[in-house]
Amino acid sequence: MLKGFNYPLTPKGKSTLNPAPPWYYSSDFLNVEFWAEPAAVAAVLPQGLDADRSANGHANACFYDWQFSGNDEEYLDPARYQYREFFILVDALYQGKPVVYCPYIFVDNDAALARGWTQGYPKRLAQVFQTRYYAATGKAGPALAAGSKFAGSITSGGQRLAEAVVTLKEPATDSSRSAQRPLVNLLHYPCLAADQQDKPAIHELVENVPRDVKLEQAWVGEGSLTLPACKGEELSDLAPVRCGKGIRASMAYVVDDLKTLKDLRK
Amino acid sequence: MLKGFNYPLTPKGKSTLNPAPPWYYSSDFLNVEFWAEPAAVAAVLPQGLDADRSANGHANACFYDWQFSGNDEEYLDPARYQYREFFILVDALYQGKPVVYCPYIFVDNDAALARGWTQGYPKRLAQVFQTRYYAATGKAGPALAAGSKFAGSITSGGQRLAEAVVTLKEPATDSSRSAQRPLVNLLHYPCLAADQQDKPAIHELVENVPRDVKLEQAWVGEGSLTLPACKGEELSDLAPVRCGKGIRASMAYVVDDLKTLKDLRK
Amino acid sequence: MLKGFNYPLTPKGKSTLNPAPPWYYSSDFLNVEFWAEPAAVAAVLPQGLDADRSANGHANACFYDWQFSGNDEEYLDPARYQYREFFILVDALYQGKPVVYCPYIFVDNDAALARGWTQGYPKRLAQVFQTRYYAATGKAGPALAAGSKFAGSITSGGQRLAEAVVTLKEPATDSSRSAQRPLVNLLHYPCLAADQQDKPAIHELVENVPRDVKLEQAWVGEGSLTLPACKGEELSDLAPVRCGKGIRASMAYVVDDLKTLKDLRK
Amino acid sequence: MLKGFNYPLTPKGKSTLNPAPPWYYSSDFLNVEFWAEPAAVAAVLPQGLDADRSANGHANACFYDWQFSGNDEEYLDPARYQYREFFILVDALYQGKPVVYCPYIFVDNDAALARGWTQGYPKRLAQVFQTRYYAATGKAGPALAAGSKFAGSITSGGQRLAEAVVTLKEPATDSSRSAQRPLVNLLHYPCLAADQQDKPAIHELVENVPRDVKLEQAWVGEGSLTLPACKGEELSDLAPVRCGKGIRASMAYVVDDLKTLKDLRK
Repeated sequence: MLKGFNYPLTPKGKSTLNPAPPWYYSSDFLNVEFWAEPAAVAAVLPQGLDADRSANGHANACFYDWQFSGNDEEYLDPARYQYREFFILVDALYQGKPVVYCPYIFVDNDAALARGWTQGYPKRLAQVFQTRYYAATGKAGPALAAGSKFAGSITSGGQRLAEAVVTLKEPATDSSRSAQRPLVNLLHYPCLAADQQDKPAIHELVENVPRDVKLEQAWVGEGSLTLPACKGEELSDLAPVRCGKGIRASMAYVVDDLKTLKDLRK
Repeated sequence: MLKGFNYPLTPKGKSTLNPAPPWYYSSDFLNVEFWAEPAAVAAVLPQGLDADRSANGHANACFYDWQFSGNDEEYLDPARYQYREFFILVDALYQGKPVVYCPYIFVDNDAALARGWTQGYPKRLAQVFQTRYYAATGKAGPALAAGSKFAGSITSGGQRLAEAVVTLKEPATDSSRSAQRPLVNLLHYPCLAADQQDKPAIHELVENVPRDVKLEQAWVGEGSLTLPACKGEELSDLAPVRCGKGIRASMAYVVDDLKTLKDLRK
Repeated sequence: MLKGFNYPLTPKGKSTLNPAPPWYYSSDFLNVEFWAEPAAVAAVLPQGLDADRSANGHANACFYDWQFSGNDEEYLDPARYQYREFFILVDALYQGKPVVYCPYIFVDNDAALARGWTQGYPKRLAQVFQTRYYAATGKAGPALAAGSKFAGSITSGGQRLAEAVVTLKEPATDSSRSAQRPLVNLLHYPCLAADQQDKPAIHELVENVPRDVKLEQAWVGEGSLTLPACKGEELSDLAPVRCGKGIRASMAYVVDDLKTLKDLRK
Repeated sequence: MLKGFNYPLTPKGKSTLNPAPPWYYSSDFLNVEFWAEPAAVAAVLPQGLDADRSANGHANACFYDWQFSGNDEEYLDPARYQYREFFILVDALYQGKPVVYCPYIFVDNDAALARGWTQGYPKRLAQVFQTRYYAATGKAGPALAAGSKFAGSITSGGQRLAEAVVTLKEPATDSSRSAQRPLVNLLHYPCLAADQQDKPAIHELVENVPRDVKLEQAWVGEGSLTLPACKGEELSDLAPVRCGKGIRASMAYVVDDLKTLKDLRK
């Protein structure tokens, strides 16, 4: 019997892109809140999700520097399991309930891309960077202090898709992320058979089921974001009308489940 | 309605990793024939395929420098659609019929990875290189002539997984690749729901249906291949017992279909 | 005694970025002729070179896919010695004689960067791509024929710095590149000592001395080029006022010398 | 007048690889102490440095995750100024005084390579990774605590050149790095003129002059290191006979000077 969770499946299961869950994560991240044109947000929603009119185009842009591990100390192979990520979350409604949906997400690592696709994250590859915080601060290393700035950028297919800056104001209070909405993705897998290319093999709404979420060193402040127009890309249709809060923090969590909400093929 | 074939699905369908088929390809490639331990070849075969005892561990290692296009001149965006690939094909039997199976394959591009997964190719990312032929030859550019050498190498997760050299002897005759076996892949998509992680959403044998295959500038000669032992990798279990023919050629083909042979979940 | 031409110098000389010359090169390239604002061209010239008023801002933008070798079959290690390059050449005068000067050049390889710096090419790293020609043509592989298009792009520091397209019209006649001007570079090496940071250790005009130049498969046609404005970059100051001829060809040559024209520190 | 410190020199000085000093740095790093064969250490020393027999082959292998800035908030462009580094320092004597010498060093960024060459660091490009510490710890993010493990790896030209693990034991005392020796480099710039290729333009011993060095969050413990044999590389000649202390810490410093010890051409 071949072993492995994602491709490839092999006799011993060592070559697989990812071990079976649980999947453990730690990260530093930047989060910039913004408002896009409400019509642009409505346009990216899949069947089964509705525009949240009260949100008025509300969204978040996030840069994550991740470290991943399974149960076998995978974090000790950082060339294979460390990665960087950028994504957008837009507010939406599922059966009248407030949720967020991820229309765009990019990573710089294949194991992360495979885990993402398994969860309905529509990942592509990109070069993603964010300013780092070091315990040894200085002119090259901003302190966790009011006025400090942290920047993020992402480039895919050779084009700069987004740039962001978070300017710290004060440590976050415990309630800062308390109202986070559930994350609903479109799990999609196309079919290549000539007569079924418009009938995906998988096309469902799924809900992420993170657990053991930890937030540390969180600071809030002001965020700024630009989403430049690029050839062959649509991300800029969500360009900010205005920006809001910025966050810079560390985060850890565990993924070992996924909840199917609705099979959209039926 | 959202548009796109692979992730992401978007309002205009421009951001998708790939347009819907037909998919057009041109390439230069190196092919090294080799024989691995027959037991090692048998061990990588999925359920539904049988060892081809008469093949005695016969396999091929291939390096391809690809250019891809859909119907919209995608080849004019080489940063997004040009890529390099390495893969192994082992001889096997499907219902008694000679076929080849691809246990390992690597590319350096996300669009190629997505197309591959849609066809059952278990692609991971890697850095793949092969010596190029240029019309302007010289000490840095081997001619298409007897004695010329072309080398390939692949590195994934920071480890060198394979190295090959093809030494040209003579132009190929038309019949050189006439006996090519059909290519059967394991199309596999795991399920992350906690109670179904051992029940993949998709797990089938599929047969590739290439068309309009063109072969140009083909030369044959001797091949050599090494598959070094690496941490967390199993490719070296297929290390050559001996090597055979080498090929260096250009190739083009079209992909727009896939044939399902057998659903292995039943 | 330590051995090596460029860094590092080591007991056996194997780790060095480059063996000592002669250096052998083969390539495919795209060349787009264009005219920038004459004042912008004059502004990039170093001391010792004068604006060529009759050239009226004439320049060339070039994309090269290179293969390098020394005398030890370095072309058989394509992961280390194959690379891609983009550069700009502007017309100028040296002591009244027509020459070209290279203000901007980018490669994706450290050995190429080191060789370049040794010749006065001011190389930075970038991701450079050009559409390839394959003997096996098709929708993904343009033929060498009238109307075929070949595109180039370059991205550095995550920003797209240039895009070009060459549309073929006809094979080049022998005289197409006959009038090529000598290439003069600014060989520059700064000094970090606190009191000498404005006194470079090396600051001279040098002339390239290529030999055994071969041109093959050359086609000429129309060229187009864009140099978008980017943060922290000045390349776009040379943005085309208009574009001219485009070339697509293969080329080989040898480098083993450099001629010093003038020490600018005196 | 053209502006810039390193290549390229341009009208406004924005395109240059690096602004003029001062150069500011913050980092996280791993340091593994080891002993190589004393003869192998003696063999990598340049003229002017002597083997330190009492050191018995003592050396250090270091992995750094850096952030760089000049005076213009360059740390807010992390795609251009963040980078990773691996290097070896071997003990030696200069005129009888204990120093360290850097025979091998690798980075993943061109601005870092250029600054390094200006200081005599013989940098090549590589992919360098180290396990990160995050404030949000967990199975993917080791705590700063006894028993925690941090790994480093480096790959250049597609070959894995080094792997290391540091296992923490206890916080470092202030004196842990107090005895650090001065760092002496070989500043070397070759000459390409045909008759001077064995007479480098620059060939001197220089001493680094770091200032404002800060060390934070330092933990010490056990180190382990492997330097595998690789084609076309000599680093493995320094393979550890045994390993010693491991360190994991954050560090910041400033570079704005370099001291010439001796011109070796005379």
